[in-house]
Amino acid sequence: MNSQRKGRLIGASLGPGDPGLITRRAWEVLQGPAHWAYPVRRKGGDSYALDIVRRAGLGLPAAHTPLTFPMTHDAAVLARYWLQAAQTVHEILLSGRDVVFLVEGDTSTYSTFTYLSRSVRALDEAIEVETIAGVPSYHACAAHLGEPLAEGDETFAILPAGYGVDTVERLLSEFDTLVLLKVKPLLDDLIDLLKRRGLLAHGCFLEKVGTPEERIVRDLARLKGEKVNYLSLLLVKNPGRTRGTLQRGCRKKARVEGEPE
Amino acid sequence: MNSQRKGRLIGASLGPGDPGLITRRAWEVLQGPAHWAYPVRRKGGDSYALDIVRRAGLGLPAAHTPLTFPMTHDAAVLARYWLQAAQTVHEILLSGRDVVFLVEGDTSTYSTFTYLSRSVRALDEAIEVETIAGVPSYHACAAHLGEPLAEGDETFAILPAGYGVDTVERLLSEFDTLVLLKVKPLLDDLIDLLKRRGLLAHGCFLEKVGTPEERIVRDLARLKGEKVNYLSLLLVKNPGRTRGTLQRGCRKKARVEGEPE
Repeated sequence: MNSQRKGRLIGASLGPGDPGLITRRAWEVLQGPAHWAYPVRRKGGDSYALDIVRRAGLGLPAAHTPLTFPMTHDAAVLARYWLQAAQTVHEILLSGRDVVFLVEGDTSTYSTFTYLSRSVRALDEAIEVETIAGVPSYHACAAHLGEPLAEGDETFAILPAGYGVDTVERLLSEFDTLVLLKVKPLLDDLIDLLKRRGLLAHGCFLEKVGTPEERIVRDLARLKGEKVNYLSLLLVKNPGRTRGTLQRGCRKKARVEGEPE
Repeated sequence: MNSQRKGRLIGASLGPGDPGLITRRAWEVLQGPAHWAYPVRRKGGDSYALDIVRRAGLGLPAAHTPLTFPMTHDAAVLARYWLQAAQTVHEILLSGRDVVFLVEGDTSTYSTFTYLSRSVRALDEAIEVETIAGVPSYHACAAHLGEPLAEGDETFAILPAGYGVDTVERLLSEFDTLVLLKVKPLLDDLIDLLKRRGLLAHGCFLEKVGTPEERIVRDLARLKGEKVNYLSLLLVKNPGRTRGTLQRGCRKKARVEGEPE
């Protein structure tokens, strides 16, 4: 009967780079008998997620499989690779062994694990999935800077910068803090926008925080024309943003404090 | 000379409730010789943060101090308590001992540690502060539901619900996912809004995820008129939100893919 048991698929968030930010639960799974799977961009390529675990002092176990997820936006190509990865993982799960998929950052945001677990469940609904939450990169960045993302009644938003300068400018007026991801393609335009809005001193560029290649740049103007990594982000605060009225306290109570309407 | 050394102030994020989500770095500090400080709402009251550590199997060390931060929006009262807490912590730091402040969730969002560390540094600029990032509640909630906060090109925003139904409705059209915090005072109004917008099935209410008192409600209509905890949040997805054009790839390249402009 025991040989009929299927393994569980575990998504282990490892945080953005500092091995100290791995959670106790992820650490426990990594020490256990689960088969390791980890993403690479091409066959034989490096794995950022695996690198975090290695820097934590763990060696690669005998039971491990790299899964290829190429850097492309071609939906047909992606679907083929996701299916292939899901089939590989599913075969191991059918043998009764748990599979832990190594995730850089947190599984809930822009993670390959979302597609992998969905594809595995599409092949086999009976597969049990455990998702271990982790520290997102922007939270680690804020902690590293010693500056909060939000305090009191503040608001913040996270978006790929690719939606463009107009969208970023509109949201700058709405939020206290913006986290802009994938800034690579339009960093120059973003720097120009912040300069025009007088917010250059309120931004910070961060790359691979918590790793040996960490880079933090507060003087954003210096980055113009520079090549940046895919794993970089821009934190921007807008101390002058328009504030709405805030409703507080018990339900049905109109308001206790805030600016006049 | 050694007796002149001042202690460090360490903000240790513990995650939202599941002791498995404590990071290795926070765990290391908790096992060390640092003096523990933790927030309570009133003298002799419970500490949610301390509770997480206790459920992880750690006992309170002899060197520990509760710090009172009352639930009030009165700025003058708050300032008095922050100063008092900072003075208490500063005295311990002057003795050369490190102080670790226990933080539920993550230090970067809506955390008392922001005020505490600022007040301590205002008293004594020479105090070194270490901020240990942690798993934010909304990331743990998403992992628990097995649903991402954002995938692909999606965007998401975090805000106190108190800005009101109009603000929430406007942002619903802008973001794929909204995380609404402090929903207690206007939960009924939010449920009405989601019903009107046809998004009731895309929302989920979560309270104290990862603790023995965890509560998850997908049938939001059921919550109308119910009393909810301060530590609760609402995740809302808007599958129908308007999408902008996305700029991708290398810098200066116009666009590779996306909807027509």
